[in-house]
Amino acid sequence: MSIVSDAPTPRKVELTDEEIFDAHIDGKLSVELTSPLESQRDLSIAYTPGVAQVSRAIAADETLAARYTWTNRLVVVVSDGTAVLGLGDIGPRASLPVMEGKSALFKKFAGLNSIPLVLDTKDPDEIVETLIRLRPSFGAVNLEDISAPRCFEIEKRVIEALDCPVMHDDQHGTAIVVLSALMGAVKVQNRNIADLRVVISGAGAAGVACTNMLLAAGATDVVVLDSKGIVSRERKDLGPIKADLAERTNPAGRHGGLIEALAGADVFVGVSAGTVPEEIVATMADDAIVFALSNPDPEIHPEVASKHVAIVATGRSDFPNQINNVLAFPGVFKGALDAGARRITEGMKLAAAEAILSVVGDELAIDKIVPSPLDPRVAPAVAEAVAAAARAEGVTE
Amino acid sequence: MSIVSDAPTPRKVELTDEEIFDAHIDGKLSVELTSPLESQRDLSIAYTPGVAQVSRAIAADETLAARYTWTNRLVVVVSDGTAVLGLGDIGPRASLPVMEGKSALFKKFAGLNSIPLVLDTKDPDEIVETLIRLRPSFGAVNLEDISAPRCFEIEKRVIEALDCPVMHDDQHGTAIVVLSALMGAVKVQNRNIADLRVVISGAGAAGVACTNMLLAAGATDVVVLDSKGIVSRERKDLGPIKADLAERTNPAGRHGGLIEALAGADVFVGVSAGTVPEEIVATMADDAIVFALSNPDPEIHPEVASKHVAIVATGRSDFPNQINNVLAFPGVFKGALDAGARRITEGMKLAAAEAILSVVGDELAIDKIVPSPLDPRVAPAVAEAVAAAARAEGVTE
Repeated sequence: MSIVSDAPTPRKVELTDEEIFDAHIDGKLSVELTSPLESQRDLSIAYTPGVAQVSRAIAADETLAARYTWTNRLVVVVSDGTAVLGLGDIGPRASLPVMEGKSALFKKFAGLNSIPLVLDTKDPDEIVETLIRLRPSFGAVNLEDISAPRCFEIEKRVIEALDCPVMHDDQHGTAIVVLSALMGAVKVQNRNIADLRVVISGAGAAGVACTNMLLAAGATDVVVLDSKGIVSRERKDLGPIKADLAERTNPAGRHGGLIEALAGADVFVGVSAGTVPEEIVATMADDAIVFALSNPDPEIHPEVASKHVAIVATGRSDFPNQINNVLAFPGVFKGALDAGARRITEGMKLAAAEAILSVVGDELAIDKIVPSPLDPRVAPAVAEAVAAAARAEGVTE
Repeated sequence: MSIVSDAPTPRKVELTDEEIFDAHIDGKLSVELTSPLESQRDLSIAYTPGVAQVSRAIAADETLAARYTWTNRLVVVVSDGTAVLGLGDIGPRASLPVMEGKSALFKKFAGLNSIPLVLDTKDPDEIVETLIRLRPSFGAVNLEDISAPRCFEIEKRVIEALDCPVMHDDQHGTAIVVLSALMGAVKVQNRNIADLRVVISGAGAAGVACTNMLLAAGATDVVVLDSKGIVSRERKDLGPIKADLAERTNPAGRHGGLIEALAGADVFVGVSAGTVPEEIVATMADDAIVFALSNPDPEIHPEVASKHVAIVATGRSDFPNQINNVLAFPGVFKGALDAGARRITEGMKLAAAEAILSVVGDELAIDKIVPSPLDPRVAPAVAEAVAAAARAEGVTE
């Protein structure tokens, strides 16, 4: 079964170096004024002497900073540059174009102000401490492109230290969209997540979060693979994160590698940089689902995979079913901030996944299990669902 | 001689609480996109996969971050909220409306992107350390509203630690505009700064910087007053900053208070929150110059002062000769960044003072010794002069 049999194969967007670099000259962000500064009167209102009244009011009641400054809805995109795209540890300066792009997406899709803050330290203590010191300057933290397993500890500690929405997008943004896509796929197929044998290739930031998210959504048989094979309780080489995964996954006690994991499996989620040979995909169960999310090169080409499985998704824009974090993070943060949430819960993430799927509506099909990343309806729908979940869970105070 | 005898007294701008607070709702800044994100193609250029090429290029040559990110010309306005306007130590959150206003002024007058970063720490070590960690995120640092004498140490250490323009505006912005105004006043009077007996009331951030700036510009007889009187070598109660001032000022060895300092003096620069009685101003020399810069209430009302002296300036917008830092800081930072300067030197600050005066041109008069703070010609003139000075001094590499 081919997902593209009835439509011309979409062409990959061809970009020249020149147009890419030109678009990044002087960066992609600008700070603008929201009040005029044309007259002496404007100056007296926005700056001295008028501003003193606003400062005095906040000094008397610090909660007024939420109303009279931009910080309450400002998302800082924070990275140490240790795990940037597929490029690895390229450092904070080289990560900046990505972080600026992320800030641009926050404005474009959720209307949120966002600035990149990149840190010249890889030390978790120093990263957490720096954000604590900067706390009055922002309203939410999007951690980005921080390497595993450091990212787990850093996110946990930042969440504990700050009373505001904090999310490592490489973990949870990916997991939300993967869950949403899987819910779409099983809905098309009239199946249940609980009945599926799921294989997740990759035990880094995205792999761990996808595993947790799918388990929270009812998956019962998830097998995780790292670079050494199936994660199982018998492995002696596991750090604490993977040892914990081993406790909560692989109920059948499988061991071995990709061959053993995929034989008869219903779902493959690829979030490593590896490749999956066609002959192994061919051993999956009937009506299998493949999410080959490595970027820019999927673990298996979608046209090859679709010869053997029912539904294929990738991270690429030039094939159907593009699984892209931008479907999740703008709306998740907008919803959390709209509700005044102090943290982002599992329930809010599940609500986000459901909301993304809801936008697909009647168009749901094997080649339309997720909306387009550019669909302007997604972020508002996600925000509304996330805010409602936050209020229902009582995390708004 | 009255400075306002030939013109109607300007009226003070009357502002209601409601219009002030309304103008600050949700803050005064917005982050906007400089490239479109409308199509799949736009997304592929500004974000993945295109952005990876830009990141890879910067990873190979970190200097390219200056060209392909916004950071190189981004000014961070940094405060710990310890000395905000006339309000004192009101904390970082309450300082935010001022810092946002400052960032807005950077954009309005110099076209520079600027963001406020307020710190929840007063510890100089932690402030310096935080800025070192954030170094890849910005291009220049405007320190703001940090209390004396901590501000001197913090500025010195931040300058030493970072290879970019750093300036504590409460010190040097004020000093530049005071020097410029004094140059304008002596030009009107056909006198020389070197011949004047100058009294500076206040030995905090602005007082120390004004003293240094006037000495650098050729003043030979400067007397500084703190809350206990004239700073002199005989005082046993001086900390290191004031002891250093005592070494370099008060050549006649004066002692006493305001009465002793002002009797026969040519220039009074008020940068404390004190008041100066009319009868003491009356004891100044003929053709005296009074800069009563306390805000919102000058040390002496300009109409009262002008009964006894030749030239009066204040920080207020409703009288002639408004001495406002906005005449200096936008152009100083723009010039420094335009030239690629690694620091801001005395020569660059002197050039800024001269450039501000140059804009007044043929309009120079006793009631026009500085341009209007809203004059759009000022920042470009200052920037050009500062950049030229930076290149001449070789601080651009």
